[in-house]
Amino acid sequence: MKAYEIRGGFGLDKLVPCERPDPTPGPFQVRVRVKATSLNYRDLMMVEGRYNPRQKLPLIPNSDGAGVVDAVGPGVTRVKPGDRVMGLFSQAWLAGEPSRTAQATTLGGPLDGALAEMMLLHEEGVVPTPPHLSDEEASTLPCAAVTAWSALVTQGGLKAGDTVLLQGTGGVSIFALQIARMLGARILHTSSRDDKLERARSLGAHEGINYVTTPDWDKAARTLTGGTGVDHVVEVGGAGTFEKSLRAVRLGGTVSVIGVLSGGAGTAPLTPILMGNLRVQGVFVGHRQSFEALNRALTLHNIHPVVDRVFPFTEAPAAFEYLKSGAHFGKVVIRVE
Amino acid sequence: MKAYEIRGGFGLDKLVPCERPDPTPGPFQVRVRVKATSLNYRDLMMVEGRYNPRQKLPLIPNSDGAGVVDAVGPGVTRVKPGDRVMGLFSQAWLAGEPSRTAQATTLGGPLDGALAEMMLLHEEGVVPTPPHLSDEEASTLPCAAVTAWSALVTQGGLKAGDTVLLQGTGGVSIFALQIARMLGARILHTSSRDDKLERARSLGAHEGINYVTTPDWDKAARTLTGGTGVDHVVEVGGAGTFEKSLRAVRLGGTVSVIGVLSGGAGTAPLTPILMGNLRVQGVFVGHRQSFEALNRALTLHNIHPVVDRVFPFTEAPAAFEYLKSGAHFGKVVIRVE
Amino acid sequence: MKAYEIRGGFGLDKLVPCERPDPTPGPFQVRVRVKATSLNYRDLMMVEGRYNPRQKLPLIPNSDGAGVVDAVGPGVTRVKPGDRVMGLFSQAWLAGEPSRTAQATTLGGPLDGALAEMMLLHEEGVVPTPPHLSDEEASTLPCAAVTAWSALVTQGGLKAGDTVLLQGTGGVSIFALQIARMLGARILHTSSRDDKLERARSLGAHEGINYVTTPDWDKAARTLTGGTGVDHVVEVGGAGTFEKSLRAVRLGGTVSVIGVLSGGAGTAPLTPILMGNLRVQGVFVGHRQSFEALNRALTLHNIHPVVDRVFPFTEAPAAFEYLKSGAHFGKVVIRVE
Amino acid sequence: MKAYEIRGGFGLDKLVPCERPDPTPGPFQVRVRVKATSLNYRDLMMVEGRYNPRQKLPLIPNSDGAGVVDAVGPGVTRVKPGDRVMGLFSQAWLAGEPSRTAQATTLGGPLDGALAEMMLLHEEGVVPTPPHLSDEEASTLPCAAVTAWSALVTQGGLKAGDTVLLQGTGGVSIFALQIARMLGARILHTSSRDDKLERARSLGAHEGINYVTTPDWDKAARTLTGGTGVDHVVEVGGAGTFEKSLRAVRLGGTVSVIGVLSGGAGTAPLTPILMGNLRVQGVFVGHRQSFEALNRALTLHNIHPVVDRVFPFTEAPAAFEYLKSGAHFGKVVIRVE
Repeated sequence: MKAYEIRGGFGLDKLVPCERPDPTPGPFQVRVRVKATSLNYRDLMMVEGRYNPRQKLPLIPNSDGAGVVDAVGPGVTRVKPGDRVMGLFSQAWLAGEPSRTAQATTLGGPLDGALAEMMLLHEEGVVPTPPHLSDEEASTLPCAAVTAWSALVTQGGLKAGDTVLLQGTGGVSIFALQIARMLGARILHTSSRDDKLERARSLGAHEGINYVTTPDWDKAARTLTGGTGVDHVVEVGGAGTFEKSLRAVRLGGTVSVIGVLSGGAGTAPLTPILMGNLRVQGVFVGHRQSFEALNRALTLHNIHPVVDRVFPFTEAPAAFEYLKSGAHFGKVVIRVE
Repeated sequence: MKAYEIRGGFGLDKLVPCERPDPTPGPFQVRVRVKATSLNYRDLMMVEGRYNPRQKLPLIPNSDGAGVVDAVGPGVTRVKPGDRVMGLFSQAWLAGEPSRTAQATTLGGPLDGALAEMMLLHEEGVVPTPPHLSDEEASTLPCAAVTAWSALVTQGGLKAGDTVLLQGTGGVSIFALQIARMLGARILHTSSRDDKLERARSLGAHEGINYVTTPDWDKAARTLTGGTGVDHVVEVGGAGTFEKSLRAVRLGGTVSVIGVLSGGAGTAPLTPILMGNLRVQGVFVGHRQSFEALNRALTLHNIHPVVDRVFPFTEAPAAFEYLKSGAHFGKVVIRVE
Repeated sequence: MKAYEIRGGFGLDKLVPCERPDPTPGPFQVRVRVKATSLNYRDLMMVEGRYNPRQKLPLIPNSDGAGVVDAVGPGVTRVKPGDRVMGLFSQAWLAGEPSRTAQATTLGGPLDGALAEMMLLHEEGVVPTPPHLSDEEASTLPCAAVTAWSALVTQGGLKAGDTVLLQGTGGVSIFALQIARMLGARILHTSSRDDKLERARSLGAHEGINYVTTPDWDKAARTLTGGTGVDHVVEVGGAGTFEKSLRAVRLGGTVSVIGVLSGGAGTAPLTPILMGNLRVQGVFVGHRQSFEALNRALTLHNIHPVVDRVFPFTEAPAAFEYLKSGAHFGKVVIRVE
Repeated sequence: MKAYEIRGGFGLDKLVPCERPDPTPGPFQVRVRVKATSLNYRDLMMVEGRYNPRQKLPLIPNSDGAGVVDAVGPGVTRVKPGDRVMGLFSQAWLAGEPSRTAQATTLGGPLDGALAEMMLLHEEGVVPTPPHLSDEEASTLPCAAVTAWSALVTQGGLKAGDTVLLQGTGGVSIFALQIARMLGARILHTSSRDDKLERARSLGAHEGINYVTTPDWDKAARTLTGGTGVDHVVEVGGAGTFEKSLRAVRLGGTVSVIGVLSGGAGTAPLTPILMGNLRVQGVFVGHRQSFEALNRALTLHNIHPVVDRVFPFTEAPAAFEYLKSGAHFGKVVIRVE
């Protein structure tokens, strides 16, 4: 099979095409013919050696892939050849509390990922694709959409009438917008560009805040909530924005931290966390029960992920460059086949 | 002031007009000029002596009223004259766990209620009326809408993509429909009449089940959920329906019991509760934080309660008769002024 | 290997010794040499055909077994030969919400159980035995102790200072006593015999109520809680006791239903559930994360299960008879090897 | 009445005795004759102007006081003269979510506090004193003990068998030790002094870690938990310790932030919060339902707060100096009468 691997060191120039033997499914394993894979900022960091410098190479990158089961090993009962499936980000996190095992079985590092014609996965590590989604669309869900769902629903309990503040127009934030909208929440969305805010509004955001022209967006958020503050912030930016996020949120509110996945890293001042009785909740993607619940919601509401651009398999490095440019709105996808 | 009171015994014929002295607010009290009051099945049972045969008489019935603050006593800071407010069902239940005090301070019995030109309440016992609602609409919220919100949100945690089964077209069920819709849930609605199902569909129900033509509506619910069962049933009917509700719900699902408020009373078989790992959750209306959260959601989504019919104050007994007939869809209201 | 199976129909006389081929572990499977198996009322009902009359025969009964891994199939990483383990009641319920699969993979019916010299289980379906426990002791945990933990902890959230009411001296109730004690709760314990109440007190119960001499034990429970009622009842008795349980519990309190496992079956009146804002929670044993949490607690507190009597393998039917007599206090165990 | 007030500026030298008119309870108010008041680090910061430099002066400091009701205003029903009570830290936070009102009604700033012979409080703002406690002991509960309870129980859900890491021997940490012990948790306790660790062990700590001789106490905590990490850290130290706390906690674990109350202030790195799926939970003391639950637990377990030293009223400034020295183990109390 054809694949890309990070080989001989880190860096986008080390992401090279390769040929690997076609895998054969062992007991309880399934072989997925990958149709599409999407990019997360984590994947870019992985290629550049910023995510885990000790990652063993070569590695096939990308946590997210969707395709079709084309062979199953002995004992498999959850799926059959021909089934459309997506890979589970953390192959061993099915429900409940996270664990070392869950952390050690993530696709696209440390395990080989989806930038390949085939993936060999345990039958428990795949999730049926919602019928209304194309493979390109489905390939965007395993990391970014599940992260947004975990933040707002599984760990956040966001409900109709609550207010959530979302930052920027990367994959997680746009999924958070679509999910918050399904949940009936009010959405304040920030961006550096008015045209992107306009698109966010067309997707259901109630208010747009341009943080370039309104650098005190935390105060704007408080004003828009009658001085109370928002119930939930999905923090993707890290250092620069975190203090403002803490000022934008209400007493007893929640800030979900997903920043590293977007490249951010920073620090949180403890005093406002304490005085505001705030919860700062790290979100390391999520488990299969969350993924399945997300899919039920997407199906009921006929929601399609926002795919910014689809690159052919032969131009995979260009897709990473494009993601790195930050010009996208929603998800960047690579068509594998 | 003019009022109605249950006097000299129970029964609709004992519901009589009366004259009471205008109340004067003491410290921390507010006087509300009632504009409208809505009827709940509980109010009917109260008048007929079926809710609490030991209730002391005379009693001004009706838990639900909306109007305008027209006088405040010393120390009041939460509201001011001119504010539009609704009464809190349980005057002393502000948040957290219920208590004996909460149970002993419900309006319309044991305390005097809203079928009067004025109500004298503690300032903590009123909630601001959402601006987009008329007084008639607002008067429908304190019991039925808060019950539906407590069942689905505060105690139920219903989320987008979940499936809820609702029964009939009384006040609580129609509010549950509107709330479940805001939450992004899928709604299966039962009724004995196709025209009512049609109205439920127009309000957002995804599926209607006529339990006369489909007496095995529990099986229908399972079929409509791919054999899994629904996540949540709001049980209003009591004896006849409860066993079917237990069969309609998924493993680990929830049945909210609000039946007595609708006149039902029955028994639940324990074996299916155990084998299904089910939760059967009694819902005794709810606290002020739930009411306030409900109001935020109604306001954001611009939802108006479904008012079936408005009776003039002079025809209060006829309003009770109409509620008793079961012909209504949504809420029955009495205009006080 | 030697085993017992239910063969040719239901009834204690149909529980007969048999010889089965030694199982060979396939991929991801482990073979457990069973050292001890304990009896639950469910096992007795299974043998007598009262639990599931459609159960396919022959069946090796008993959900609970403990022993030593003596062979592993390809791919096994969670355990190795020589490890002491216990079987998981529901082989496929690892965490989170229950599912049909979880329900369909319980040991001792529909799957073959532990009344045999060997069990062949998936590696995910075993849990390490706490080092301080003997095999006889460990064999008592998978059904009864996990049920008590799920009821009080996973689903119940019982905390220090809360009051719990426990009924009788069967396996689940005695585990609930030991667990409630570890959690720092106050324990009211009922029984028909003063000597058993004395033993319950010696294990940590704060109050004993003889329900023969105090048939209104619900009132006694209210009196002992200053009129408030208890926070939690673990209901094992079914029909006769359930109404009293509902009267013994406080507003907003919880009644855990585990009665069928003890042979009870009955009905619950809905009105007190509603008026008391009560939660009635069915408990179908529990998942592996609960089992593991239980083991951590037992280990920290050096708690040993209460084993009433150990029968040799050759007298398995007598062990069932003894369980049926109701004379036991705690668990009845069969030594397999 | 006699009192102390901060007058004419901040600083320990500005804490001066004064005479105030005896307060007279208005409607729904109670007058408490203060018997004892305890010191929290917050009170010291308040006096020194570090807690809220904009606090209006003069101010009677101290959030925590216990005494006896000696007069009640019209309408009071919750207590009567002669009842032993403690003040509620946040007078308006009775249950549920925190609010601006809750934050604006804390005793000892912005409202006058307990370093006085009398306090005038709303009847909802007092809590009955557990009978087994002296007034000195009771005076230690409102801030520090409720904070520890909120962190571990209300917001933390700590359970038997879980492991908690506690830091130092200030008031909150010692209450957390006593509470964690009641809950059945395993306790790792850090201190700079072996003799204090010995005292912590005598109170129930399972392991003591001297962070002077073991500066990598985070690694020690991981080793003591088999590499997993602890379930919960109660973080009191702030800047220096927070990063280590994040490394000491398990995947999916919780760090409660109460540092400012102990004088600390610092920052939290976001990356480990994200990668560990950690929850960082600010704890702003807590509500009345938590206080009441704490009292039930203390009463059941006959737990007495650890009072380090009691100063006479005339030596109040010396008590503050002593607290500032950090030499205490547990709580510092001032006897008022």
